[in-house]
Amino acid sequence: MESKIQNYISNNRDRFLNELMELLKIPSVSADPAYKADVLKTADAVAQRLREAGVDNVEICPTAGYPIVYGDKIIDPTKPTVLVYGHYDVQPADPLDLWHSPPFEPVIKNDRIYARGSADDKGQMYMHVKAFEIMMKENILPCNVKFMIEGEEEVGSANLGTFTEANKAKLACDCVLISDTSLIANDIPSITVGLRGLAYIEVLVTGPNRDLHSGVYGGAVANPINALCEMISKLIDEKSRKITIPGFYDDVLDLSTEERTLLNQIPFSAEDYKSDLKIDATRGEEGYTIIEQTSTRPTLDVNGIKGGYLGEGAKTVLPSWASAKISMRLVPNQHPDKIQALFKSYFESLTPAGCKTEVSFHHGGEAVVVPIDTPEFKASSKAMEKTFGKAALPARGGGSIPIVALFEQVLGVKSVLMGFGLDSDDIHSPNENYGVWNYFKGIETIPYFFHYYTEMKQK
Amino acid sequence: MESKIQNYISNNRDRFLNELMELLKIPSVSADPAYKADVLKTADAVAQRLREAGVDNVEICPTAGYPIVYGDKIIDPTKPTVLVYGHYDVQPADPLDLWHSPPFEPVIKNDRIYARGSADDKGQMYMHVKAFEIMMKENILPCNVKFMIEGEEEVGSANLGTFTEANKAKLACDCVLISDTSLIANDIPSITVGLRGLAYIEVLVTGPNRDLHSGVYGGAVANPINALCEMISKLIDEKSRKITIPGFYDDVLDLSTEERTLLNQIPFSAEDYKSDLKIDATRGEEGYTIIEQTSTRPTLDVNGIKGGYLGEGAKTVLPSWASAKISMRLVPNQHPDKIQALFKSYFESLTPAGCKTEVSFHHGGEAVVVPIDTPEFKASSKAMEKTFGKAALPARGGGSIPIVALFEQVLGVKSVLMGFGLDSDDIHSPNENYGVWNYFKGIETIPYFFHYYTEMKQK
Repeated sequence: MESKIQNYISNNRDRFLNELMELLKIPSVSADPAYKADVLKTADAVAQRLREAGVDNVEICPTAGYPIVYGDKIIDPTKPTVLVYGHYDVQPADPLDLWHSPPFEPVIKNDRIYARGSADDKGQMYMHVKAFEIMMKENILPCNVKFMIEGEEEVGSANLGTFTEANKAKLACDCVLISDTSLIANDIPSITVGLRGLAYIEVLVTGPNRDLHSGVYGGAVANPINALCEMISKLIDEKSRKITIPGFYDDVLDLSTEERTLLNQIPFSAEDYKSDLKIDATRGEEGYTIIEQTSTRPTLDVNGIKGGYLGEGAKTVLPSWASAKISMRLVPNQHPDKIQALFKSYFESLTPAGCKTEVSFHHGGEAVVVPIDTPEFKASSKAMEKTFGKAALPARGGGSIPIVALFEQVLGVKSVLMGFGLDSDDIHSPNENYGVWNYFKGIETIPYFFHYYTEMKQK
Repeated sequence: MESKIQNYISNNRDRFLNELMELLKIPSVSADPAYKADVLKTADAVAQRLREAGVDNVEICPTAGYPIVYGDKIIDPTKPTVLVYGHYDVQPADPLDLWHSPPFEPVIKNDRIYARGSADDKGQMYMHVKAFEIMMKENILPCNVKFMIEGEEEVGSANLGTFTEANKAKLACDCVLISDTSLIANDIPSITVGLRGLAYIEVLVTGPNRDLHSGVYGGAVANPINALCEMISKLIDEKSRKITIPGFYDDVLDLSTEERTLLNQIPFSAEDYKSDLKIDATRGEEGYTIIEQTSTRPTLDVNGIKGGYLGEGAKTVLPSWASAKISMRLVPNQHPDKIQALFKSYFESLTPAGCKTEVSFHHGGEAVVVPIDTPEFKASSKAMEKTFGKAALPARGGGSIPIVALFEQVLGVKSVLMGFGLDSDDIHSPNENYGVWNYFKGIETIPYFFHYYTEMKQK
């Protein structure tokens, strides 16, 4: 099996890379309606590639939003079934001026593929298509496979729940396999066993009914930008960096001393971390390490703010409104709906005289903790040990993949978060990139997961 | 004289309006380099109109920025000389979507001219051109006139000081006449005797060297938007609404009880004020009336803020930077340079760990108080009494015309701030408008100012 995989990759290396590059050229930005045609074109391309790889029953399933691409290969109903999940949509690429090369004209520099979506998630999703091709062509596919590739992950997977509910039988499986997370490092393989949840909120503070001259009205009329800044500054305690929304921490489960000790054994250098980001200090919640702050503790970040005159030069305006996008990362047992309600009620209470506040919700997702004493975890760990030469560590990720909770609730199965990216891939940032080494390491590792998983389930 | 003015206006009413409408069609936005050709075209148009009205020696004087249009009519060197100042540039028009008609396609609705610059200052500046035409054509020009119409008032008149210094002899005069302010109401004529100064600042807060994924880094890395909001919230005390910059009030001269009593006799309804702006409360400095807050007290307003993702939908970014435009209105005896230095030092001191702050200065201007026991004030008051049927009240304006202090320093003369706008003209806002009544009332009043001023100076 080892030589079959190695040889197939060697003989098809350029084509595997070129096919990914082609996929990266389509700007499938799901957040921006201007890219609608491109998102749909990407769904077509993914479906076509699945068919070419030998997947059966490929279809582009419509939803109320962007379609879900489905396909399967059922070799024997008595064998286990792995559902591969991925997404073909990408984050917006702006700010464009900070990219060193255009986000949708992929280039390889220093053995890394630079393009929006290279790591998140086209590159990681496409590893599964190519790994499947190898297993098919080399006759080493040990079990059944289903593919579900969606187009709305970056905007909250709003229609995935309905689709999954409506297609329970079709999607029935023994586990879900997802590559949309990171390794600790290329020489420290890891499998994500915890992910933070998300509550994403938009706030609008309005003052006077029109933009005013700040000289004529300034000093008497509440300025919505000043008001919004005051309100935002009250969301986090300045010293402890704890979130001040009443009730926010009520459902947070503290980690045991053992869990914290284990977590902090992950190799990590605060100096390297700061030096990579060119910052002189971090600024996290008092009493927790950086690893804990970014994986096991809830957080609040303003993701965007705007109001007043945004152009060049100066304009003496007292604006009519100001708005912000604010998101909170949640930990297991915190519920997005409850947190959103707590946020709304607290934030509205901060509104100063002369202003009004509107709070609206973008999307939310539950946090996830995956158990490690399962065939899923063991098979993925063993697969990584085979190709990395080292056992994989269980790791907590700071990001959110809300669909993991969904699959558990609706399909009753666990997910395996076997990602091959790195935290430094700059996903969601300018110059997103994915290592060529990581791409092929993923393609190489995935067939072993299928192999070990089938073995363990059939024991 | 009365019938000559009235008849001339009656016979040329449509042309006077149409000429202004043509001028308003040119988008002379000085703040935005995209409009450079239009700003220059406007200078040409103003020069041409001055020539047509009978002004001599008209020239378009280059500066390091936009040119200054100069022209004069010297009828007798022994007579007084009035220098008319105005500006042909306008504020940016955005947000465009709030205009009911395009900002540079002027329309008259309900006897008001809707267009960017209609009141500030093309409409008010052009009253002087037409009043001059009447005095020339009807042979009632009693003294010498000089015109200086600049193109950078809305961006801080950066090159006016150099130009004035270099052309002292050419600009020599007995007083400067400016129409760039408001009446208290159409039935309450007033002359502005005080104006606030201005310090306009831009701040940039930077954190990590690139935009980050808020799930991966959120909780450990300082977020520049959150930091900027915290810093801005510390510029004004939440309860007293006093500005908290150390030393900010040191040079503020308190008004005497008599001055405050007089000032608050100006007819004013807080209920009408709030109802006009659709706000349920005002939010000004404790212990002062709305009139005082907006005219005799210094203020601080954020004029614009931006950072992170500004597009549609959601993006979970922890941005690399956030910026704001912040301006302070100053009162007499406060100095923009000193205030800018105090601001910079205090604002920088508020920078939290993990961030850096850059403070830069756009422009500043000194506050102004004009004495009322002068021929300039008396002549303007008498002119308004003649045409409004009511003596003009002395009033304090909240806005800033930095050039008034400049003229006093360099030319050694006082300025007369005889404006014909209204606070409700929405200058600097969408749907800027200027009353047709006000336009013609200005044209009618100006010749009387020349008449009374010459009389008083020659006594």
